Amino acid sequence: MNDVARLFGGGATPRDTRERLLFTALELFKTHGFHAVGLDRVLGEVGVTKTTFYNHFESKDELVLEALRLQDAWESDAFRRAVQARAAYDPKAMLLAAFDVLDEWFTSTEYRGCLFILACAEFPSPDDPIHRVAARFHGFAEEEFARMAAAAGVDDPAALAREWVLLMQGATTNRMVGGDDGAARVARGLAEQALARRLPRG
Amino acid sequence: MNDVARLFGGGATPRDTRERLLFTALELFKTHGFHAVGLDRVLGEVGVTKTTFYNHFESKDELVLEALRLQDAWESDAFRRAVQARAAYDPKAMLLAAFDVLDEWFTSTEYRGCLFILACAEFPSPDDPIHRVAARFHGFAEEEFARMAAAAGVDDPAALAREWVLLMQGATTNRMVGGDDGAARVARGLAEQALARRLPRG
Repeated sequence: MNDVARLFGGGATPRDTRERLLFTALELFKTHGFHAVGLDRVLGEVGVTKTTFYNHFESKDELVLEALRLQDAWESDAFRRAVQARAAYDPKAMLLAAFDVLDEWFTSTEYRGCLFILACAEFPSPDDPIHRVAARFHGFAEEEFARMAAAAGVDDPAALAREWVLLMQGATTNRMVGGDDGAARVARGLAEQALARRLPRG
Repeated sequence: MNDVARLFGGGATPRDTRERLLFTALELFKTHGFHAVGLDRVLGEVGVTKTTFYNHFESKDELVLEALRLQDAWESDAFRRAVQARAAYDPKAMLLAAFDVLDEWFTSTEYRGCLFILACAEFPSPDDPIHRVAARFHGFAEEEFARMAAAAGVDDPAALAREWVLLMQGATTNRMVGGDDGAARVARGLAEQALARRLPRG
């Protein structure tokens, strides 16, 4: 398992019953989806009763929300580290390195799709708290790309950031639908053109 | 309801019990997802017994497969007509018009996301028959874009088609996650650059 795979997967060890519930649920949701995994299945795998569960979480929805927040914390941190490791602090290189990190993730044997896209698909109403928490991950990424773009001297950083998120979402969905692990490289090619066009000449 | 919305939504009237089951299931799946809608709910809405259901379908999985095939037939036809209506048979214009059709779909009040991406997300294994049928829709689109690109005189039609599908998937996922209906226009901007780069000069 390489660094990217380990970081995306977490690789952490649960410290208590709450974390055991959370880590187990996260694994099950990533593999099967949110609706397909009933609470009984989570409790069965962890080996606790419903009473114990309700000492830690109010509902399955709260478990889903906390699982998404945990994945967000792991993945944001992992992504940031991986991008910086590839591109130091050169903002132009960092913008493109984001696609290389995505590529490494897609080609990893640990790859099991994007939990946030899955959550938004399964909880389609934008007003659903689960949809909102999942969408926030992409919102934060957009803000970070806008900061990189501004540092790189791009004309319209917000527009580039919007393109970046769309290209990453396209790559991730392309990987999911077609199962072809070259999706991030296709997106990188489009990103290179967009970056070149938005940088001042000379 | 405009043409695009009507065509994507089907707008057809069921002719028999099998179609009533299929049309009702399709509506429920689009609104709530595949796993979130139990068979009992479909039967309840249509007002038939389990016995009646099993006279028409072997299982819920078969209902899902048939619903996807129906949506594929409607949507492929609708998309093709809408693109041709905007761009006659000029292949370059057709390639870009695909994003305008997407834009019209996204901004329609009838918009409820892409059923094929939802199916691939909820049935993540590429070997699952449901995933396979859903992914095929995007595969056919890619073949069609490659034909348009070849007719337009693009250098590498297969590469452009790959980019097109990724951009459309990116736009659709962006629309779903962020709820922002400008996603297709962002993707069109990236597509215009990609097309210009792949066309021979002069």
